Amino acid sequence: MSAVPALVAHTADGPLVPGTVERREPGPYDVVIDIQWAGICHSDIHTVRGEWGPVPYPLTVGHEIAGVVSAVGAKVTRHRVGDRVGVGCMVNSCRECDACRAGFEQHCEKGMIGTYGAPDRDGTITQGGYASSIVVTEDFVLSIPDGLDFSKTAPLLCAGITTYSPLKHWGVGAGSKVAVVGMGGLGHMAVKIAHAMGAEVTVLSQTLSKREDGLAMGASAYYATSDPATFETLHAEFDLILNTVSASVDLNAFLRMLRFDGALVTVGVAEKPMSIDTMTLFVNRRKVAGSMIGGIAETQEMLEFCATHQITPEVEFISAEQINEAWENVLASKVRYRYVIDTSTLASA
Amino acid sequence: MSAVPALVAHTADGPLVPGTVERREPGPYDVVIDIQWAGICHSDIHTVRGEWGPVPYPLTVGHEIAGVVSAVGAKVTRHRVGDRVGVGCMVNSCRECDACRAGFEQHCEKGMIGTYGAPDRDGTITQGGYASSIVVTEDFVLSIPDGLDFSKTAPLLCAGITTYSPLKHWGVGAGSKVAVVGMGGLGHMAVKIAHAMGAEVTVLSQTLSKREDGLAMGASAYYATSDPATFETLHAEFDLILNTVSASVDLNAFLRMLRFDGALVTVGVAEKPMSIDTMTLFVNRRKVAGSMIGGIAETQEMLEFCATHQITPEVEFISAEQINEAWENVLASKVRYRYVIDTSTLASA
Repeated sequence: MSAVPALVAHTADGPLVPGTVERREPGPYDVVIDIQWAGICHSDIHTVRGEWGPVPYPLTVGHEIAGVVSAVGAKVTRHRVGDRVGVGCMVNSCRECDACRAGFEQHCEKGMIGTYGAPDRDGTITQGGYASSIVVTEDFVLSIPDGLDFSKTAPLLCAGITTYSPLKHWGVGAGSKVAVVGMGGLGHMAVKIAHAMGAEVTVLSQTLSKREDGLAMGASAYYATSDPATFETLHAEFDLILNTVSASVDLNAFLRMLRFDGALVTVGVAEKPMSIDTMTLFVNRRKVAGSMIGGIAETQEMLEFCATHQITPEVEFISAEQINEAWENVLASKVRYRYVIDTSTLASA
Repeated sequence: MSAVPALVAHTADGPLVPGTVERREPGPYDVVIDIQWAGICHSDIHTVRGEWGPVPYPLTVGHEIAGVVSAVGAKVTRHRVGDRVGVGCMVNSCRECDACRAGFEQHCEKGMIGTYGAPDRDGTITQGGYASSIVVTEDFVLSIPDGLDFSKTAPLLCAGITTYSPLKHWGVGAGSKVAVVGMGGLGHMAVKIAHAMGAEVTVLSQTLSKREDGLAMGASAYYATSDPATFETLHAEFDLILNTVSASVDLNAFLRMLRFDGALVTVGVAEKPMSIDTMTLFVNRRKVAGSMIGGIAETQEMLEFCATHQITPEVEFISAEQINEAWENVLASKVRYRYVIDTSTLASA
C-alpha cells in the first residue's frame, strides 16, 4: 500500500481538502498510472453531497482520468511503462456474465465496480482520480491514441463515452436529425460527436447564451427551450433527442419533437421522476430510453473515433487548490465546458 | 345516402339505443360491407363517455368489423362481392406522407381518419361498426383469410393488430422472453400471438383468476402483480414487456423486470401520466415505447399469421339489445375475453 496525494471529501457539505489516498500494491495484472489530468464531472459533486446515496467518507472522486503508465504487473500485456492511458467510470466487473461477455461491463449482472466510492474485490473502497496516481487492472485501462491533445482527453472517459454510446447505438449517421438537450459538459461533446457522425445537429438549451459556441462545434441550429415557440417550430422534427440535462425536464414536450420511430435518450440523471403521457408515446411509435456510459471496447472505439475526427472537449484547466471554486461554477453552469485538474499541482496543494 | 340500423350514443352517460346511421353512396373506389360481426373495444366506451375528448353525438362506435362485401365501386380491384372482409380502427389517410408511403398509415402526418367520430373527407363524421353496413374505400378494407372462424375475426382488427405489431417490431421470436401485462381483450391476444411467434410467455395479471386460461392459451408462467414477490422473482427477466392495461401502472417496477436492452411497450392508454426514474432507465439500457394499432399491410399480414397459426380471440357473442349490459361487464373486467355483437340482431333491436 502506498499513500498518494489527493483531494479528499470528508463530509457532504464541506470543501474538498488536500490529503492522501491509499493505493494497493500492483498485482500481476495491474497497471500503475501517474495521473496527469482529471476531469470534473457533475456526478462527482452529486456523489460527495450524498444526493445519490450514502457516501463512504473520506472519499476521493474523479472518473475522467488521463495519465502515463509508471509500472505494470508481471502478467500485463496490454499496456507498457510510458504509455498514455485513461480510466473512466469503472475499474472492474465480473467478466463472466452475459453483459460482461458481450462487452457491456457497465451493465454487469453482479454490478460493475465504480472508479470511486464502490466496494472493491479486496474489501476496500475505490478512490477516484483527483489524485496523483491510481492502480487499475489492465482490462479497464484505455489506450489514448496518438494525435489527441493529451491534456484534453480526460473528459472523453466519461462525457465522451456517455454521449458516443447512445449516438452509435441508435444509428446516428448521415441524414440523421439529432437534437441535443443541454449545452454543458455532456451536451457539447454530443454536438461534436453527432456532427462528426454526419448528423444534422440542433441544440436545445435553456437560453441562447452559448449559441455561437454550439454552432462553432457543429450544430446547424440552436433554440432556447425557455421559448415556448421552440416546441411548436420543432414538432416531429428529430430522429434522436439526446437529453444530457441532469434535472427533470418536460419529457412529453420533447417527445412531441420526435419523428416517426424516433427516440428520446436520456443520459443525465434527474433527481425527480419524470412523467410520461401514454398518448404522446403512441403517436409516431416514440421511445424513451436510458443510456449509461459505455463498455470498455466501445470506450476504446470512441477514443479512436475522436482521434480520427480530432474531437476533444472544450476545457478550462485548474490547479488543485481551485477545486472548490470550480465545483461551485459547475453547479452554477459557469464552466465552458469541462474543468480539468492539472494533478501535478496536487503535491503542493 | 342511405340510413342503416345501428346502435347510437346520444350522450356521454346515457345508454346506446337502436337507431340508424347514414352511409354515403359508394364512390368508384368504395366497398359496401354488410357487417355481420362487430367487436367491443374498451376504446369505444372511453370515446362515448368523453374521456378522450369532445364527442360529436349522435355517434355509432365500433372498430372491429367483419362482414361480407355487398357491392363495389366501378374501379375497385381488391375486393369482390361476396368476399369476407374486415375493417379496423381507420378508414383512410393522406396516402402521400412519408408515414403513409412506408405503410404506417396510423401515423399519417396529416392524421389518419378514424373509423368513428372523425371528420371524413366529405365533412361528415365517420360512424363505426355497431351497424348493419358500412362504406369504406377499398385500400382500408382487409381480406379475411379462409380457414379462420369468421365469427371470431372482428377483434383481430383492433386487439389482434395492436398486439401483433409491437411483438413483430421488437423482434419477438424463438428464445424471446415476453411478459404480457393484463389479461383482457388485448392481453389474451398478445399471449396467443407471442406464443405462436415462438416466445416464452409470462402473464402478469392483477390476480391469478385467469391463470388456467392463460396457460391454455400458451403462457408458460402466470404471476399476480398484486403480490410484491412477483417483482422480486422476475427481476431482469424479460426481453419485452407488453403492457396492455389501460390504467396507470408502476412503470419503474415493470422496467426492473427487463433484461439488458429490453423494452417495455405500452399499448393501453392510461388516463394519467406515468412516472419514470431515470436511474431505472439507465440500468440495462432499458426502453419505454408506445405502439398504436398497425398499418394496413401489417394488419393483412397479421390476419394471414393468425390463419396460419389458427389464432382467434376467445369471444362471447351478444345480440344488439345486450349492448349496455356488455359495456358494464367490460368496465368490470367480466368479459372472457372479447364481446362480439351479432349485427344481424340489429334490425330487430
